[in-house]
Amino acid sequence: MPINSGEFYSDLASKMEASAIREILKLVQNPEVISLAGGMPDPATFPVEDIKKITQKVLDINSARALQYSSTEGLPELRKCILEHLAKDGNNGELENIIISSGSQQGLDLVGKTFLSPGDIAIVELPSYLAALNAFHSYGGVLVGVPMDEDGMRMDILEEKLIQLKNKGKKVKFIYTISNFQNPAGVTMSLARRKKIIEIAHKFNVFIVEDNPYEKLRFEGDPIPSIYSLEKNDSVISLGTFSKILCPGLRIAWILGNKEVIRKMAILKQATDLCTSILSQLIAYEYCQMGKIEENIKSNVKIYTRKRDAMISALEKHFPKEATWTNPKGGFFVVVTLPEYIDTGEMFKEAIAENVAYVPGAPFFADGKGQKTMRLSFCYPSEENIEEGIKRLGKVIKKRIKN
Amino acid sequence: MPINSGEFYSDLASKMEASAIREILKLVQNPEVISLAGGMPDPATFPVEDIKKITQKVLDINSARALQYSSTEGLPELRKCILEHLAKDGNNGELENIIISSGSQQGLDLVGKTFLSPGDIAIVELPSYLAALNAFHSYGGVLVGVPMDEDGMRMDILEEKLIQLKNKGKKVKFIYTISNFQNPAGVTMSLARRKKIIEIAHKFNVFIVEDNPYEKLRFEGDPIPSIYSLEKNDSVISLGTFSKILCPGLRIAWILGNKEVIRKMAILKQATDLCTSILSQLIAYEYCQMGKIEENIKSNVKIYTRKRDAMISALEKHFPKEATWTNPKGGFFVVVTLPEYIDTGEMFKEAIAENVAYVPGAPFFADGKGQKTMRLSFCYPSEENIEEGIKRLGKVIKKRIKN
Repeated sequence: MPINSGEFYSDLASKMEASAIREILKLVQNPEVISLAGGMPDPATFPVEDIKKITQKVLDINSARALQYSSTEGLPELRKCILEHLAKDGNNGELENIIISSGSQQGLDLVGKTFLSPGDIAIVELPSYLAALNAFHSYGGVLVGVPMDEDGMRMDILEEKLIQLKNKGKKVKFIYTISNFQNPAGVTMSLARRKKIIEIAHKFNVFIVEDNPYEKLRFEGDPIPSIYSLEKNDSVISLGTFSKILCPGLRIAWILGNKEVIRKMAILKQATDLCTSILSQLIAYEYCQMGKIEENIKSNVKIYTRKRDAMISALEKHFPKEATWTNPKGGFFVVVTLPEYIDTGEMFKEAIAENVAYVPGAPFFADGKGQKTMRLSFCYPSEENIEEGIKRLGKVIKKRIKN
Repeated sequence: MPINSGEFYSDLASKMEASAIREILKLVQNPEVISLAGGMPDPATFPVEDIKKITQKVLDINSARALQYSSTEGLPELRKCILEHLAKDGNNGELENIIISSGSQQGLDLVGKTFLSPGDIAIVELPSYLAALNAFHSYGGVLVGVPMDEDGMRMDILEEKLIQLKNKGKKVKFIYTISNFQNPAGVTMSLARRKKIIEIAHKFNVFIVEDNPYEKLRFEGDPIPSIYSLEKNDSVISLGTFSKILCPGLRIAWILGNKEVIRKMAILKQATDLCTSILSQLIAYEYCQMGKIEENIKSNVKIYTRKRDAMISALEKHFPKEATWTNPKGGFFVVVTLPEYIDTGEMFKEAIAENVAYVPGAPFFADGKGQKTMRLSFCYPSEENIEEGIKRLGKVIKKRIKN
């Protein structure tokens, strides 16, 4: 009798189903489909010539090291170089405050593994990054959502939730926020809110996990100090990555925080993948110390600003007046809100029939709502495809509008 | 008041402590110390010139893809190429039977995450690979050890344990075995035992996880068909890796098994690290399809055979008659057994004082025994250093021998 794998799964594995995006991306394989769904950077932003030169250099000079196992915490010289860059914005730390992760997703996984036992509570934004919700769910985390407005997470509601949970005797492990150009909502937490979230975190004795992949991709306005840089009590864990300022293919990201937590994460990471590719780390290190990151960011910002503009003007041109959308000052994403009676999950097949794809909003909402929303990304498609994709999508939506 | 991170850890994270090897390797930083501890391949086995050429080619032709995110399951062409190689030894599978992992350690992590809820039982060999035990512990797995002899895991004791556990109403999720040149013990499971373990697994309805990193590093004797190739009921999960036949720095390994399990693992991997570096995957793919793997394995086997011989003859020359050791026909490791009254954990500091390092055996034993054993590796140090290291270690041991 063949083995029935279902009866062998762990409790948590049994509950983990294929994500909506995962299933969607399979439908998007057809080259006729214009995808406004994925969050892949534009390959035009990859500094290919520099990476080629660097890679050759690394393999010329350092192959015995570059192709070997390495330490779980990551290359000290890479961690130092990242620390120097972060310090320019007031994000201070020593070598023991930082660990290299295999992409930011591993950072999120380690956050889940470090803090969450089944039933433990984490506060997340409504909506929030789908793959972070998945990582926290995969450890049995119970996610409590706090809505956002144009200034980010609503601090009045956050405090209310924390009081309610405290009164019920529930311990909250951390508050998860994507402080800049949030995925999916595109909004940025204001300085006042950043100060307030720290005050609240201290009052209720809870960690803040600040996920910050898009900070440097700001199209307009002044940078706002990170929550990590504003907090002085070692209770912020900050996640950063090379994926959006260099390229995602290397899978090099970092976690900055409390030395004790970083040490625990290193122990857990060792059981997870031993170490991150040292070849990738050496390439990221050489690029970091060349001092070209700022320059590359500038050229990336130019590319993405044009694409954001293309999407916003296409939305104005092709979407019905019943639709509203965020107008992000940076990052990769726009969230569109449609009338209550439209379910973007149901509408998805019609969009695919018109050869355009997006991500339905519901999976981003820890409270199971958001059916009327959708995430559109302007990072990967060309400006022409953005215009054409929005046009097609506008047509699909207009068919659903009731008069 | 500063945050007290200890009170925030998950139940499982609280229990995860730095491994013995981790702490040991810190002591081994001193270049005076000859380390017989680590399991790093000899860099002389890395085909550096080929990797250089391949990497340049990949970045010349395919940079937009190589530096991008990729699918969680891994590149189809790499998976196909691996399947073709595996099929030569009767390890058959289709594309849905294989997933790329970020090193074999991620394979072990995914095995733990897929199958083990806290308290679930896995059977392991006594001794077994430390980092596998850690991965299983990190999900709360309860590990039941079965001793080995020179033919591998003792099938009579395995069956006995399974009967006992069944009688207690306990479900066993899988049997974990390193079938070839076991880490740390160096022994290989005989063909008769392989057939028997399949029979037992079927009888008791339990998965077998066959970890097989060293299979191709056979110094003498004929290859034995893998458990995966002998089993016809989809209940073997097989782990393989490029780390020992190409280089570990790419972090490219694979998991071969039951399509349902592989699909579940892909869902879990997505929450863990989204995808494995596509640059690394493309390098591994190009190398795989060049057809040079067999040739590289041959030259690696030559190198490691000489080193194994150097270690065995040094042991014969320098170790006291009270010590016994395995004489592995492949792989990286020798296990030495000393008289009962010697605790290799306690003796470790004396060895470091003599500038030689090894790994004390106890952490490899799921039953907490093995204090009188130690793991020695001949993979990384030069033949001269193997001889000198064993000489120093012999001196340390002789001081502890009671007359």
